[in-house]
Amino acid sequence: MKKLKRSARLVEMTQYLLARPHTLISLTAFADRYQSAKSSISEDLAIIKEVFEEEGIGELYTLAGAAGGVRFVPKCRKEQALERIQSICRELEQPDRLLPGGYLYMTDLLGQPGLLQDVGQMFATAFADRNIDAIMTVETKGIPLAHAASLYLNVPVIIVRRDHKVTEGSVVSINYVSGSTKRIQTMSLARRALREESRVLIIDDFMKAGGTIQGMIDLLHEFRAVVAGVGVFVESGEVDNEERLLHDYISLAKLTEVDLKSRQIVVQPGNFFN
Amino acid sequence: MKKLKRSARLVEMTQYLLARPHTLISLTAFADRYQSAKSSISEDLAIIKEVFEEEGIGELYTLAGAAGGVRFVPKCRKEQALERIQSICRELEQPDRLLPGGYLYMTDLLGQPGLLQDVGQMFATAFADRNIDAIMTVETKGIPLAHAASLYLNVPVIIVRRDHKVTEGSVVSINYVSGSTKRIQTMSLARRALREESRVLIIDDFMKAGGTIQGMIDLLHEFRAVVAGVGVFVESGEVDNEERLLHDYISLAKLTEVDLKSRQIVVQPGNFFN
Repeated sequence: MKKLKRSARLVEMTQYLLARPHTLISLTAFADRYQSAKSSISEDLAIIKEVFEEEGIGELYTLAGAAGGVRFVPKCRKEQALERIQSICRELEQPDRLLPGGYLYMTDLLGQPGLLQDVGQMFATAFADRNIDAIMTVETKGIPLAHAASLYLNVPVIIVRRDHKVTEGSVVSINYVSGSTKRIQTMSLARRALREESRVLIIDDFMKAGGTIQGMIDLLHEFRAVVAGVGVFVESGEVDNEERLLHDYISLAKLTEVDLKSRQIVVQPGNFFN
Repeated sequence: MKKLKRSARLVEMTQYLLARPHTLISLTAFADRYQSAKSSISEDLAIIKEVFEEEGIGELYTLAGAAGGVRFVPKCRKEQALERIQSICRELEQPDRLLPGGYLYMTDLLGQPGLLQDVGQMFATAFADRNIDAIMTVETKGIPLAHAASLYLNVPVIIVRRDHKVTEGSVVSINYVSGSTKRIQTMSLARRALREESRVLIIDDFMKAGGTIQGMIDLLHEFRAVVAGVGVFVESGEVDNEERLLHDYISLAKLTEVDLKSRQIVVQPGNFFN
């Protein structure tokens, strides 16, 4: 790279850091990249750090010493996130989202890149300190959420299939009982998808009793992997504590009321905001 | 926002633009946001523009006049993209990816956030001028690619299901013939997923004869939507021109040889690089 003026270097460093979350970049690497003294690089990083923190983009952690460097950790500010989730809750409460059986149509929301980025940042904030190696989800609606979080945590996504596809090679399959319907179902994961002892974050779009997520946890045990966290976009509040299979999870929103007759839906911020 | 120094403003504007591709932002909006004169904002934008173009991040288009403003259009440089795709081709050629039936295991690659960002940028570059309103894909492996492209084109993703889920509400279903297996299959899309006359980019992970993509095109006709482009990650070169249902598409890589006996796989850059 040609030598840049400070103003151009700030632009370049900003995009470079944003594209590499949770990655330690040594000051030497930056100094080489920009043909600049480490002292100048440190001044630049101080400016970027202040803006990132002020604007709720994330934190820049600097490690001193020979092995030192800087690590960008995306983190949203709780009050900004709360404002955003409240507007998402209002969207989810639109009466025409109500489907037969009390299901909520939310596929459209899970297709919007802006919403996914915000939600991905929230998950990345919630699990920033959990040393995640991979994110796991089950097809289909959890996939966009898992990938959104993966952008900010900078770890790969592993997709559990509900059937056994020829394109996955040999798989490990388990049966699980969906807590709400009580039906036995199968899920499978390619044998080569996951290394032993990986620390895995489970992400899904909707959780009622938690049967599907419990299935994923069982599957992780088959791979001798570790559950490093569970995050759901919307949890159902219509579950008794006894019925609930899972207690340690982060939810971004909570469906507290569905009245099929009056078509009234109430959605509130989830336990991430407690 | 509090008034920032130029150096901090450059950092803030860089991240602001990166998060809003294909969006016209008026100079007035920037001037208000940063409490600065439009002339200063224009100077900042000129610095950002130069870095973005130099580094293959994208272009900043400025529109003069009262309704003027700036639009960030992500675009990668062909030679950088070619280098990246060549390294992806080498990964795809690993013999242990070969599955029974001549299928290639590539699920792991489609889980990597870095690869997805690069591939998303390539699709966004290929279709930057097509006025895309939405991206369509079919579950499951196309989903990460569609969302990666959606980040850079800033349009929603619509997922076609292979079955009819209760969480989708009323759907439109069609039958299609998978060109390679000749089996009749069904795909469906929620009736409310797509507006009439939307211009839709179809993205998928793998194309052989193109039967699945032809199915999506037929589905788009049911919605009176327009096919604005077709992009596939890997196309199979083992198809006669007569067998091929589709001729107007962009591929990023091409599987030109699979020898089950010697386990040799050859993958080359696709027609995007012609």
